[in-house]
Amino acid sequence: MFLKNQWYVACRPDDVADRPFARTLLEQPMVFFRDALGVVTAVEDFCPHRGAPLSLGFVDSGQLVCGYHGLRLAADGSVASMPKQRVHSFPCNRHFPTVERYGFIWVWPGEPTLADPEALPKFNWATDPGWAYGGGLYHVRADYRLMIDNLMDLTHETYVHASSIGQREIDEQPVRTKVIDETVVTSRVMENVKAPPFWQMAMEQRGLDPESLVDRWQVCQFHAPSHVMIDVGVALAGNGGMDAPDEAKVRAVVVDFMTPETPTSHWYFWGMARTWAVEDASVTEAVRSGQGAIFAEDLAILEAQQRSLDLNPTRKLLMLDIDAGGVQSRRLIQKLWDAEQASAGEVAHA
Amino acid sequence: MFLKNQWYVACRPDDVADRPFARTLLEQPMVFFRDALGVVTAVEDFCPHRGAPLSLGFVDSGQLVCGYHGLRLAADGSVASMPKQRVHSFPCNRHFPTVERYGFIWVWPGEPTLADPEALPKFNWATDPGWAYGGGLYHVRADYRLMIDNLMDLTHETYVHASSIGQREIDEQPVRTKVIDETVVTSRVMENVKAPPFWQMAMEQRGLDPESLVDRWQVCQFHAPSHVMIDVGVALAGNGGMDAPDEAKVRAVVVDFMTPETPTSHWYFWGMARTWAVEDASVTEAVRSGQGAIFAEDLAILEAQQRSLDLNPTRKLLMLDIDAGGVQSRRLIQKLWDAEQASAGEVAHA
Amino acid sequence: MFLKNQWYVACRPDDVADRPFARTLLEQPMVFFRDALGVVTAVEDFCPHRGAPLSLGFVDSGQLVCGYHGLRLAADGSVASMPKQRVHSFPCNRHFPTVERYGFIWVWPGEPTLADPEALPKFNWATDPGWAYGGGLYHVRADYRLMIDNLMDLTHETYVHASSIGQREIDEQPVRTKVIDETVVTSRVMENVKAPPFWQMAMEQRGLDPESLVDRWQVCQFHAPSHVMIDVGVALAGNGGMDAPDEAKVRAVVVDFMTPETPTSHWYFWGMARTWAVEDASVTEAVRSGQGAIFAEDLAILEAQQRSLDLNPTRKLLMLDIDAGGVQSRRLIQKLWDAEQASAGEVAHA
Repeated sequence: MFLKNQWYVACRPDDVADRPFARTLLEQPMVFFRDALGVVTAVEDFCPHRGAPLSLGFVDSGQLVCGYHGLRLAADGSVASMPKQRVHSFPCNRHFPTVERYGFIWVWPGEPTLADPEALPKFNWATDPGWAYGGGLYHVRADYRLMIDNLMDLTHETYVHASSIGQREIDEQPVRTKVIDETVVTSRVMENVKAPPFWQMAMEQRGLDPESLVDRWQVCQFHAPSHVMIDVGVALAGNGGMDAPDEAKVRAVVVDFMTPETPTSHWYFWGMARTWAVEDASVTEAVRSGQGAIFAEDLAILEAQQRSLDLNPTRKLLMLDIDAGGVQSRRLIQKLWDAEQASAGEVAHA
Repeated sequence: MFLKNQWYVACRPDDVADRPFARTLLEQPMVFFRDALGVVTAVEDFCPHRGAPLSLGFVDSGQLVCGYHGLRLAADGSVASMPKQRVHSFPCNRHFPTVERYGFIWVWPGEPTLADPEALPKFNWATDPGWAYGGGLYHVRADYRLMIDNLMDLTHETYVHASSIGQREIDEQPVRTKVIDETVVTSRVMENVKAPPFWQMAMEQRGLDPESLVDRWQVCQFHAPSHVMIDVGVALAGNGGMDAPDEAKVRAVVVDFMTPETPTSHWYFWGMARTWAVEDASVTEAVRSGQGAIFAEDLAILEAQQRSLDLNPTRKLLMLDIDAGGVQSRRLIQKLWDAEQASAGEVAHA
Repeated sequence: MFLKNQWYVACRPDDVADRPFARTLLEQPMVFFRDALGVVTAVEDFCPHRGAPLSLGFVDSGQLVCGYHGLRLAADGSVASMPKQRVHSFPCNRHFPTVERYGFIWVWPGEPTLADPEALPKFNWATDPGWAYGGGLYHVRADYRLMIDNLMDLTHETYVHASSIGQREIDEQPVRTKVIDETVVTSRVMENVKAPPFWQMAMEQRGLDPESLVDRWQVCQFHAPSHVMIDVGVALAGNGGMDAPDEAKVRAVVVDFMTPETPTSHWYFWGMARTWAVEDASVTEAVRSGQGAIFAEDLAILEAQQRSLDLNPTRKLLMLDIDAGGVQSRRLIQKLWDAEQASAGEVAHA
């Protein structure tokens, strides 16, 4: 189940340079290119002439030229020209609104007239110079909602990431889940614990003693359609945890954008925005590389879980307190999906 | 949609030497072997005993011996013998008429009693010593009719083969399409143009100045079930083009036999017969190698086009004037197919 | 068609050491592990919490710990514990009875209450110190019944194994097939023949002159659900063949356990128990390696046969006298399967 009338992360700005860029999102093959002003646009990756993928062609003067017989598409999906042809009656390609923001290209796969750039989420970590960001992309052969479940229940860290960010105390601390408007929040605090290896590395980069006891927090926020931002960090014990003064803590936001490709695969844009050593590119690279290794562990589990669920399609799963974050997020997606279907029905009957 | 009561190219004579040769044509696994006189024959690649592919066995005294339990098949598909068995009541394998001609093995996948070797096309380039031939084989994961479309509309050369045989002038010259009995002909003439790189190479091999202006022609002929012969060449400008005297032109026939494997794949036997430097094997190899590289570009486009069409099965394509060659060829296939179905019905009711 | 209420070979004891071991048998993903006493057990490879494969986790104190969120399964498939959860109402996983015997782990995929270790077959070669065993495992993409056919008709040796155990005389000697209770027996004797290469090697290892004429025997026994034991050997001619004194013969049992994975694939546990040079590990290795190469030839034929049958699903095969062993074995499987279905119906109506 995919929400269509939403902004999704499609790719990075560098992916769309001087050549067309193909990616299938929400089961729709799309091709991204830049118009004459350098503004990114997206259209169906299908030439209306003979059906070849337009992404095999090239970009010329802001138009996308089919690599088979030279049909030229304008940025809005209309046919601009074709050698020796009158094209005014040619059908248009579907066009998908796009916005370039926060270091990503965002796409709206649904009804274009509903696409409002103002509806894009606001991310302080992406605009405030007090933060530094690094990240990557994984293609995951699993329903994007399995990744939401994963990110909204961090008890898995004790098992999946035992050598980096997992620790016994995660299991032992109950989690609290709240739904506030269209956001689901799960949070967990571990006080007076030893920092796990990843956070010891961060403490060192910050100039803190990695052996000190800390208060550790994890606050996961789900927003429709499929973004999870996780406020994480450790503060020297007794300084107020998340609210401790900057010099006593290391704080980051784990950034997760999951864009469905098919019902059982998605593009996973992962990253971390941090508040320490923000000028130091080597720290960015060390954090990115460490996070990449950790998230590859999730990828392996989720793909195995998807295959296992495919083999057992009627089997009911347990829904425990620790699962509440995922359950509430799926409920929110379902609610928005029902609304989208109802509204599509209204449009159809209008 | 495949025509069955037709001669198709199956393989090259060398493919069927002293061992059985397996190939699936028109969704039928076939095995080719030579009888005691060296005559090629083809039967179903399925042992009537336990169903193993007969092509895993060997040929002995002109019989095909199953590699599992030793059943021996005669050239006509009947069971000749089997150790310690009386085989007279064993069912026969289907047998497919074959002819070895023009450097190919031809097969008739349909009703054997209708197979008439006289119905094979006549190819002057294959029998006249004034021509030299070289070619190759590609397996293409696309409907064979996409290749017919491709070959009957050479405007694609400007885009797909920009660096070898494409040139801007192709786009700029209109194409004429005619249907004459069971042949579709599309032709285009470009006068007073510079030769593209491939033809410059040919002019040099002929001893002509490659920088001279030329008249270039392309005459594509489609014959059922799936052959496209393209008369191509360049003549020094003002000498009559295609009709110029031999010493002022380089002329060739692009030879294309497409034999369906499945509805979305085919065997593409491509080659070129030329009239210059016909004794020079190094020219044959240079032409063959150049053509192989050019046709690999078509292969890439067509396979992408097939995947794209598979994802958009209900979508209508445009049919422009440049597409008339392919459209008429498909119409001819459809007409012959309707006749084949009607005639099969008559046989069934007789 | 699989019999479910039967003992099948699942794996070797070494496969289940200190980590969980996953294998799909009879279309059921299973995970094998050892309880606190070292006794092997098998349960569904599916975590009742979120559906991840349990085999990705680890074994701790004889419990299987899920690698995603730490649910712990006891050896009987019940949930033993989970961090911060009360698990008494959690559903149990299906549990599959297992027995470790004869150097294999046996599993009962059907109704657990019917599993009787006494029903395991008795194998003299596995318990008598006068025998030595070596073997291996192949994954074969073919219906397990095609392997039964193969092993119950050794005329294929002349064709498939021409260079090792095949010989012309196999073809020339008729085979006798008997059904005795729930066992099918096919036997063939070749008197006064030259030993083929494999048996010449065995004769040398035994200290016999490999060039002597021999009496050769092959007695194939099929037992439900899918085991074939083949008593094979050669004796110096005129000494009574199979009943010759030990010093005049080399005798072995070809051991074949086929455990279905899917309708068109199986796990093939092959091996050979021999009576000569039983203390000599280098002979074990030479025999094992030779047999592995020979049986790889069967694998290639059977996988090709399966693909060929898949393409011709309605085609009838021949059933000759040489096929009687396979035909009778399939008939026995069918009879037991009918009984199993009837008995399942009774249980359902009880």
